[in-house]
Amino acid sequence: MRTGIKLSTDLPPRARGRPRSFDTEIALKAAAERFRTHGFAGTSLDDLAEATGLARPSLYAAFGDKRALYLATLSRLHQRLEGLFDGIAAARLPRDVLLETIFARTIDGYLTGEVAPSGCLAVATATTEAAADPDIRDALRGIIILQDERMARLFAAAGIASPQTAARIVMSVLHSLGVRARAGVPRDELDQIAAECIAMIL
Amino acid sequence: MRTGIKLSTDLPPRARGRPRSFDTEIALKAAAERFRTHGFAGTSLDDLAEATGLARPSLYAAFGDKRALYLATLSRLHQRLEGLFDGIAAARLPRDVLLETIFARTIDGYLTGEVAPSGCLAVATATTEAAADPDIRDALRGIIILQDERMARLFAAAGIASPQTAARIVMSVLHSLGVRARAGVPRDELDQIAAECIAMIL
Repeated sequence: MRTGIKLSTDLPPRARGRPRSFDTEIALKAAAERFRTHGFAGTSLDDLAEATGLARPSLYAAFGDKRALYLATLSRLHQRLEGLFDGIAAARLPRDVLLETIFARTIDGYLTGEVAPSGCLAVATATTEAAADPDIRDALRGIIILQDERMARLFAAAGIASPQTAARIVMSVLHSLGVRARAGVPRDELDQIAAECIAMIL
Repeated sequence: MRTGIKLSTDLPPRARGRPRSFDTEIALKAAAERFRTHGFAGTSLDDLAEATGLARPSLYAAFGDKRALYLATLSRLHQRLEGLFDGIAAARLPRDVLLETIFARTIDGYLTGEVAPSGCLAVATATTEAAADPDIRDALRGIIILQDERMARLFAAAGIASPQTAARIVMSVLHSLGVRARAGVPRDELDQIAAECIAMIL
Protein backbone atom coordinates (compact mmCIF):
# COMPACT_ATOMS: atom_id res chain seq x y z
CA MET A 1 0.00 0.00 0.00
CA ARG A 2 1.17 3.49 -0.82
CA THR A 3 1.71 5.96 1.93
CA GLY A 4 1.09 9.67 1.68
CA ILE A 5 -0.24 12.67 3.52
CA LYS A 6 -2.61 11.42 6.21
CA LEU A 7 -6.07 12.96 6.11
CA SER A 8 -8.01 10.69 8.45
CA THR A 9 -10.15 12.80 10.77
CA ASP A 10 -9.47 10.68 13.85
CA LEU A 11 -5.74 11.34 13.88
CA PRO A 12 -4.45 13.33 16.86
CA PRO A 13 -3.52 16.92 16.03
CA ARG A 14 0.03 17.09 14.77
CA ALA A 15 2.45 19.13 16.84
CA ARG A 16 4.18 20.56 13.76
CA GLY A 17 4.05 20.55 10.00
CA ARG A 18 1.34 21.73 7.67
CA PRO A 19 -2.16 21.99 9.11
CA ARG A 20 -4.66 19.45 7.77
CA SER A 21 -6.64 22.03 5.76
CA PHE A 22 -3.51 22.78 3.76
CA ASP A 23 -2.98 19.09 3.02
CA THR A 24 -6.60 18.82 1.89
CA GLU A 25 -6.15 21.80 -0.41
CA ILE A 26 -3.05 20.24 -1.98
CA ALA A 27 -4.86 16.96 -2.54
CA LEU A 28 -7.95 18.69 -3.96
CA LYS A 29 -5.83 20.75 -6.33
CA ALA A 30 -4.03 17.66 -7.60
CA ALA A 31 -7.30 15.76 -7.98
CA ALA A 32 -8.89 18.68 -9.83
CA GLU A 33 -6.00 18.75 -12.28
CA ARG A 34 -6.23 15.02 -12.96
CA PHE A 35 -10.01 15.28 -13.43
CA ARG A 36 -9.44 18.26 -15.77
CA THR A 37 -7.13 16.15 -17.94
CA HIS A 38 -9.27 13.03 -18.26
CA GLY A 39 -12.77 13.98 -17.13
CA PHE A 40 -14.74 12.36 -14.31
CA ALA A 41 -15.52 9.01 -15.95
CA GLY A 42 -12.03 8.78 -17.49
CA THR A 43 -10.25 9.18 -14.14
CA SER A 44 -9.79 6.13 -11.92
CA LEU A 45 -9.20 6.03 -8.19
CA ASP A 46 -5.70 4.76 -8.96
CA ASP A 47 -5.13 7.88 -11.09
CA LEU A 48 -6.29 10.02 -8.18
CA ALA A 49 -4.09 8.16 -5.72
CA GLU A 50 -1.12 8.75 -8.00
CA ALA A 51 -1.99 12.42 -8.58
CA THR A 52 -2.55 13.25 -4.92
CA GLY A 53 0.12 10.99 -3.43
CA LEU A 54 -2.60 9.62 -1.12
CA ALA A 55 -3.37 5.93 -0.70
CA ARG A 56 -6.91 4.95 -1.71
CA PRO A 57 -8.04 4.41 1.92
CA SER A 58 -6.82 7.92 2.79
CA LEU A 59 -8.71 9.34 -0.20
CA TYR A 60 -11.89 7.57 0.94
CA ALA A 61 -11.42 8.76 4.52
CA ALA A 62 -10.86 12.36 3.49
CA PHE A 63 -13.31 12.82 0.62
CA GLY A 64 -15.59 9.77 0.32
CA ASP A 65 -15.89 8.11 -3.08
CA LYS A 66 -14.68 9.33 -6.48
CA ARG A 67 -17.91 11.21 -7.17
CA ALA A 68 -17.76 13.05 -3.82
CA LEU A 69 -14.15 14.00 -4.53
CA TYR A 70 -15.13 15.27 -7.98
CA LEU A 71 -17.96 17.35 -6.49
CA ALA A 72 -15.44 18.72 -3.97
CA THR A 73 -13.17 19.87 -6.83
CA LEU A 74 -16.15 21.67 -8.42
CA SER A 75 -16.95 23.30 -5.09
CA ARG A 76 -13.30 24.36 -4.78
CA LEU A 77 -13.49 25.87 -8.29
CA HIS A 78 -16.66 27.77 -7.32
CA GLN A 79 -14.87 29.25 -4.30
CA ARG A 80 -11.73 30.05 -6.31
CA LEU A 81 -13.81 31.89 -8.90
CA GLU A 82 -15.39 33.99 -6.13
CA GLY A 83 -11.90 34.91 -4.95
CA LEU A 84 -10.75 35.74 -8.49
CA PHE A 85 -13.77 38.00 -9.06
CA ASP A 86 -13.14 39.68 -5.68
CA GLY A 87 -9.54 40.32 -6.68
CA ILE A 88 -10.44 41.82 -10.05
CA ALA A 89 -13.19 43.95 -8.49
CA ALA A 90 -10.75 45.35 -5.94
CA ALA A 91 -8.39 46.48 -8.72
CA ARG A 92 -11.08 48.88 -10.11
CA LEU A 93 -9.70 48.69 -13.65
CA PRO A 94 -10.95 50.92 -16.46
CA ARG A 95 -13.29 49.00 -18.73
CA ASP A 96 -10.88 48.29 -21.61
CA VAL A 97 -8.14 47.07 -19.26
CA LEU A 98 -10.76 45.11 -17.30
CA LEU A 99 -11.90 43.21 -20.41
CA GLU A 100 -8.35 42.65 -21.66
CA THR A 101 -7.28 41.37 -18.24
CA ILE A 102 -10.23 38.99 -17.94
CA PHE A 103 -9.66 37.47 -21.39
CA ALA A 104 -5.86 37.29 -21.13
CA ARG A 105 -5.84 35.67 -17.68
CA THR A 106 -8.57 33.22 -18.59
CA ILE A 107 -6.80 32.17 -21.80
CA ASP A 108 -3.55 31.80 -19.82
CA GLY A 109 -5.34 29.32 -17.56
CA TYR A 110 -7.01 27.48 -20.45
CA LEU A 111 -3.63 26.81 -22.07
CA THR A 112 -2.22 25.04 -19.01
CA GLY A 113 -2.61 21.29 -18.60
CA GLU A 114 -0.91 18.01 -17.70
CA VAL A 115 -0.67 16.70 -21.26
CA ALA A 116 -2.21 19.43 -23.46
CA PRO A 117 -4.16 22.71 -23.09
CA SER A 118 -7.04 21.70 -20.86
CA GLY A 119 -9.47 24.62 -20.77
CA CYS A 120 -11.87 24.82 -17.83
CA LEU A 121 -12.60 21.98 -15.38
CA ALA A 122 -16.30 22.87 -15.26
CA VAL A 123 -17.05 23.43 -18.94
CA ALA A 124 -14.76 20.67 -20.19
CA THR A 125 -15.64 17.90 -17.73
CA ALA A 126 -18.72 18.71 -15.61
CA THR A 127 -20.70 19.38 -18.80
CA THR A 128 -20.21 15.75 -19.81
CA GLU A 129 -21.60 14.38 -16.56
CA ALA A 130 -24.34 17.00 -16.27
CA ALA A 131 -26.89 15.21 -18.46
CA ALA A 132 -27.06 12.07 -16.33
CA ASP A 133 -26.01 13.35 -12.88
CA PRO A 134 -28.31 15.95 -11.27
CA ASP A 135 -25.80 16.93 -8.54
CA ILE A 136 -23.04 17.64 -11.05
CA ARG A 137 -25.60 19.46 -13.21
CA ASP A 138 -26.51 21.69 -10.25
CA ALA A 139 -22.84 22.36 -9.45
CA LEU A 140 -22.17 23.34 -13.07
CA ARG A 141 -25.23 25.60 -13.20
CA GLY A 142 -24.15 27.20 -9.91
CA ILE A 143 -20.76 28.03 -11.42
CA ILE A 144 -22.36 29.53 -14.55
CA ILE A 145 -24.78 31.64 -12.46
CA LEU A 146 -21.86 32.88 -10.34
CA GLN A 147 -19.85 33.77 -13.48
CA ASP A 148 -22.72 35.66 -15.12
CA GLU A 149 -23.64 37.56 -11.95
CA ARG A 150 -20.15 38.50 -10.83
CA MET A 151 -19.13 39.48 -14.37
CA ALA A 152 -22.22 41.71 -14.62
CA ARG A 153 -21.29 43.40 -11.33
CA LEU A 154 -17.73 44.01 -12.59
CA PHE A 155 -19.10 45.47 -15.83
CA ALA A 156 -21.61 47.69 -14.01
CA ALA A 157 -18.86 49.03 -11.74
CA ALA A 158 -16.67 49.76 -14.78
CA GLY A 159 -19.49 51.63 -16.55
CA ILE A 160 -19.96 49.11 -19.37
CA ALA A 161 -23.37 49.55 -21.02
CA SER A 162 -26.03 46.85 -20.50
CA PRO A 163 -23.78 45.03 -18.02
CA GLN A 164 -25.96 41.92 -17.67
CA THR A 165 -26.19 41.36 -21.40
CA ALA A 166 -22.51 42.12 -21.95
CA ALA A 167 -21.58 39.76 -19.11
CA ARG A 168 -23.54 36.85 -20.58
CA ILE A 169 -22.01 37.38 -24.03
CA VAL A 170 -18.47 37.64 -22.61
CA MET A 171 -18.97 34.57 -20.38
CA SER A 172 -20.35 32.65 -23.35
CA VAL A 173 -17.33 33.55 -25.49
CA LEU A 174 -15.07 32.54 -22.58
CA HIS A 175 -16.82 29.16 -22.35
CA SER A 176 -16.22 28.63 -26.06
CA LEU A 177 -12.57 29.73 -25.79
CA GLY A 178 -12.11 26.96 -23.21
CA VAL A 179 -13.55 24.42 -25.63
CA ARG A 180 -11.42 25.82 -28.47
CA ALA A 181 -8.24 25.75 -26.36
CA ARG A 182 -8.88 22.11 -25.58
CA ALA A 183 -9.52 21.42 -29.27
CA GLY A 184 -5.98 22.59 -29.99
CA VAL A 185 -6.84 26.02 -31.44
CA PRO A 186 -3.63 28.11 -31.23
CA ARG A 187 -3.25 31.05 -28.86
CA ASP A 188 -3.20 33.75 -31.54
CA GLU A 189 -6.65 32.67 -32.72
CA LEU A 190 -8.01 32.62 -29.16
CA ASP A 191 -6.57 36.12 -28.64
CA GLN A 192 -8.15 37.30 -31.89
CA ILE A 193 -11.62 36.11 -30.86
CA ALA A 194 -11.09 37.81 -27.49
CA ALA A 195 -10.13 41.08 -29.21
CA GLU A 196 -13.18 40.86 -31.49
CA CYS A 197 -15.47 40.29 -28.53
CA ILE A 198 -13.92 43.21 -26.59
CA ALA A 199 -14.36 45.51 -29.61
CA MET A 200 -18.02 44.48 -29.87
CA ILE A 201 -18.67 45.18 -26.16
CA LEU A 202 -16.91 48.56 -25.92
CA MET B 1 -25.96 -13.41 -26.99
CA ARG B 2 -28.24 -10.67 -28.23
CA THR B 3 -29.27 -10.59 -31.83
CA GLY B 4 -29.96 -7.50 -33.84
CA ILE B 5 -29.39 -5.88 -37.20
CA LYS B 6 -26.54 -7.77 -38.86
CA LEU B 7 -23.67 -5.63 -40.03
CA SER B 8 -20.99 -8.24 -40.69
CA THR B 9 -19.36 -7.50 -44.04
CA ASP B 10 -19.15 -11.12 -45.12
CA LEU B 11 -22.89 -11.64 -45.23
CA PRO B 12 -24.34 -12.23 -48.68
CA PRO B 13 -26.24 -9.26 -50.10
CA ARG B 14 -29.84 -9.33 -48.98
CA ALA B 15 -32.49 -9.59 -51.70
CA ARG B 16 -34.81 -7.15 -49.97
CA GLY B 17 -35.08 -4.93 -46.94
CA ARG B 18 -33.00 -1.96 -45.92
CA PRO B 19 -29.58 -1.64 -47.52
CA ARG B 20 -26.61 -2.05 -45.18
CA SER B 21 -25.68 1.63 -45.28
CA PHE B 22 -29.08 2.43 -43.80
CA ASP B 23 -28.56 -0.08 -40.97
CA THR B 24 -25.17 1.48 -40.28
CA GLU B 25 -26.75 4.93 -40.12
CA ILE B 26 -29.38 3.71 -37.64
CA ALA B 27 -26.71 2.12 -35.44
CA LEU B 28 -24.47 5.21 -35.63
CA LYS B 29 -27.35 7.48 -34.71
CA ALA B 30 -28.24 5.35 -31.68
CA ALA B 31 -24.59 5.16 -30.60
CA ALA B 32 -24.18 8.93 -30.99
CA GLU B 33 -27.19 9.52 -28.75
CA ARG B 34 -25.90 7.18 -26.05
CA PHE B 35 -22.45 8.82 -26.21
CA ARG B 36 -24.15 12.23 -26.02
CA THR B 37 -25.90 11.22 -22.80
CA HIS B 38 -22.95 9.72 -20.93
CA GLY B 39 -19.81 10.86 -22.76
CA PHE B 40 -17.16 8.62 -24.30
CA ALA B 41 -15.56 7.30 -21.10
CA GLY B 42 -18.93 6.94 -19.36
CA THR B 43 -20.41 4.73 -22.10
CA SER B 44 -19.66 1.01 -22.06
CA LEU B 45 -19.80 -1.44 -24.95
CA ASP B 46 -22.80 -3.02 -23.23
CA ASP B 47 -24.54 0.39 -23.28
CA LEU B 48 -23.79 0.67 -26.99
CA ALA B 49 -25.06 -2.87 -27.66
CA GLU B 50 -28.28 -1.99 -25.86
CA ALA B 51 -28.65 1.36 -27.62
CA THR B 52 -27.99 0.02 -31.11
CA GLY B 53 -29.66 -3.37 -30.72
CA LEU B 54 -26.44 -4.91 -32.04
CA ALA B 55 -24.54 -7.71 -30.32
CA ARG B 56 -20.98 -6.75 -29.32
CA PRO B 57 -19.37 -8.94 -32.04
CA SER B 58 -21.53 -7.18 -34.65
CA LEU B 59 -20.48 -3.80 -33.27
CA TYR B 60 -16.82 -4.79 -33.49
CA ALA B 61 -17.25 -6.13 -37.03
CA ALA B 62 -19.00 -2.99 -38.24
CA PHE B 63 -17.12 -0.24 -36.44
CA GLY B 64 -14.06 -1.64 -34.66
CA ASP B 65 -13.60 -0.78 -30.99
CA LYS B 66 -15.47 1.74 -28.83
CA ARG B 67 -13.08 4.54 -29.70
CA ALA B 68 -13.43 3.92 -33.44
CA LEU B 69 -17.22 3.93 -33.06
CA TYR B 70 -17.03 7.21 -31.13
CA LEU B 71 -14.84 8.77 -33.82
CA ALA B 72 -17.39 7.56 -36.40
CA THR B 73 -20.19 9.38 -34.55
CA LEU B 74 -18.10 12.58 -34.61
CA SER B 75 -17.50 12.10 -38.33
CA ARG B 76 -21.25 11.59 -38.82
CA LEU B 77 -21.89 14.84 -36.90
CA HIS B 78 -19.38 16.67 -39.10
CA GLN B 79 -21.23 15.48 -42.23
CA ARG B 80 -24.64 16.28 -40.76
CA LEU B 81 -23.51 19.82 -39.95
CA GLU B 82 -22.37 20.26 -43.58
CA GLY B 83 -25.84 19.18 -44.70
CA LEU B 84 -27.55 21.52 -42.23
CA PHE B 85 -25.45 24.48 -43.40
CA ASP B 86 -26.21 23.57 -47.05
CA GLY B 87 -29.92 23.52 -46.25
CA ILE B 88 -29.88 26.89 -44.48
CA ALA B 89 -27.77 28.42 -47.26
CA ALA B 90 -30.25 27.24 -49.89
CA ALA B 91 -33.11 28.98 -48.07
CA ARG B 92 -31.46 32.42 -48.63
CA LEU B 93 -33.07 33.90 -45.54
CA PRO B 94 -32.88 37.61 -44.68
CA ARG B 95 -30.31 38.22 -41.99
CA ASP B 96 -32.67 38.65 -39.02
CA VAL B 97 -34.63 35.51 -39.91
CA LEU B 98 -31.36 33.69 -40.60
CA LEU B 99 -30.01 34.44 -37.12
CA GLU B 100 -33.33 33.66 -35.42
CA THR B 101 -33.58 30.37 -37.30
CA ILE B 102 -30.03 29.31 -36.45
CA PHE B 103 -30.46 30.02 -32.74
CA ALA B 104 -33.97 28.55 -32.46
CA ARG B 105 -33.13 25.31 -34.28
CA THR B 106 -29.88 24.84 -32.39
CA ILE B 107 -31.56 25.40 -29.02
CA ASP B 108 -34.32 22.95 -30.07
CA GLY B 109 -31.63 20.32 -30.61
CA TYR B 110 -29.78 21.15 -27.39
CA LEU B 111 -32.94 20.55 -25.35
CA THR B 112 -33.39 17.00 -26.62
CA GLY B 113 -31.83 14.06 -24.79
CA GLU B 114 -32.33 10.56 -23.43
CA VAL B 115 -32.52 11.59 -19.77
CA ALA B 116 -32.13 15.40 -19.77
CA PRO B 117 -31.28 18.24 -22.17
CA SER B 118 -28.01 17.05 -23.67
CA GLY B 119 -26.59 19.94 -25.70
CA CYS B 120 -24.09 19.12 -28.44
CA LEU B 121 -22.27 15.79 -28.82
CA ALA B 122 -19.03 17.53 -29.82
CA VAL B 123 -18.88 20.34 -27.27
CA ALA B 124 -20.32 18.27 -24.41
CA THR B 125 -18.37 15.04 -24.86
CA ALA B 126 -15.50 15.36 -27.36
CA THR B 127 -14.17 18.33 -25.38
CA THR B 128 -13.61 16.05 -22.41
CA GLU B 129 -11.54 13.54 -24.36
CA ALA B 130 -9.72 16.19 -26.41
CA ALA B 131 -6.99 16.93 -23.87
CA ALA B 132 -5.62 13.37 -23.75
CA ASP B 133 -6.66 12.00 -27.18
CA PRO B 134 -5.12 13.72 -30.23
CA ASP B 135 -7.52 12.08 -32.74
CA ILE B 136 -10.62 13.22 -30.85
CA ARG B 137 -8.98 16.65 -30.43
CA ASP B 138 -8.49 16.87 -34.21
CA ALA B 139 -12.08 15.76 -34.88
CA LEU B 140 -13.40 18.42 -32.46
CA ARG B 141 -11.22 21.14 -33.99
CA GLY B 142 -12.39 20.08 -37.46
CA ILE B 143 -16.01 20.54 -36.39
CA ILE B 144 -15.28 23.98 -34.90
CA ILE B 145 -13.43 25.09 -38.06
CA LEU B 146 -16.35 23.89 -40.20
CA GLN B 147 -18.85 25.75 -37.99
CA ASP B 148 -16.89 29.04 -38.06
CA GLU B 149 -16.28 28.89 -41.83
CA ARG B 150 -19.77 27.85 -42.91
CA MET B 151 -21.39 30.35 -40.54
CA ALA B 152 -19.18 33.13 -41.96
CA ARG B 153 -20.25 32.16 -45.49
CA LEU B 154 -23.93 32.27 -44.47
CA PHE B 155 -23.41 35.67 -42.85
CA ALA B 156 -21.54 37.06 -45.88
CA ALA B 157 -24.33 35.88 -48.21
CA ALA B 158 -26.94 37.53 -45.97
CA GLY B 159 -25.04 40.84 -45.92
CA ILE B 160 -24.11 40.75 -42.23
CA ALA B 161 -21.19 43.09 -41.49
CA SER B 162 -17.78 41.58 -40.61
CA PRO B 163 -19.09 38.07 -41.31
CA GLN B 164 -16.02 36.20 -40.01
CA THR B 165 -16.03 38.06 -36.70
CA ALA B 166 -19.79 37.80 -36.31
CA ALA B 167 -19.66 34.08 -37.13
CA ARG B 168 -17.06 33.36 -34.46
CA ILE B 169 -19.03 35.31 -31.83
CA VAL B 170 -22.30 33.57 -32.75
CA MET B 171 -20.66 30.12 -32.81
CA SER B 172 -19.07 30.86 -29.44
CA VAL B 173 -22.41 31.83 -27.93
CA LEU B 174 -23.94 28.68 -29.44
CA HIS B 175 -21.21 26.55 -27.83
CA SER B 176 -22.01 28.13 -24.47
CA LEU B 177 -25.77 27.68 -24.96
CA GLY B 178 -25.08 23.95 -25.38
CA VAL B 179 -23.18 23.91 -22.09
CA ARG B 180 -25.92 25.97 -20.40
CA ALA B 181 -28.69 23.69 -21.73
CA ARG B 182 -26.88 20.71 -20.31
CA ALA B 183 -26.43 22.53 -17.00
CA GLY B 184 -30.22 22.75 -16.74
CA VAL B 185 -30.62 26.43 -17.66
CA PRO B 186 -34.28 26.88 -18.71
CA ARG B 187 -35.31 27.58 -22.31
CA ASP B 188 -36.44 31.16 -21.73
CA GLU B 189 -32.99 32.10 -20.49
CA LEU B 190 -31.30 30.41 -23.48
CA ASP B 191 -33.69 32.28 -25.80
CA GLN B 192 -32.90 35.55 -24.03
CA ILE B 193 -29.15 35.14 -24.51
CA ALA B 194 -29.82 34.28 -28.16
CA ALA B 195 -31.92 37.44 -28.59
CA GLU B 196 -29.21 39.55 -26.95
CA CYS B 197 -26.56 38.10 -29.24
CA ILE B 198 -28.73 38.67 -32.33
CA ALA B 199 -29.34 42.29 -31.30
CA MET B 200 -25.59 42.79 -30.87
CA ILE B 201 -24.79 41.35 -34.32
CA LEU B 202 -27.48 43.19 -36.32
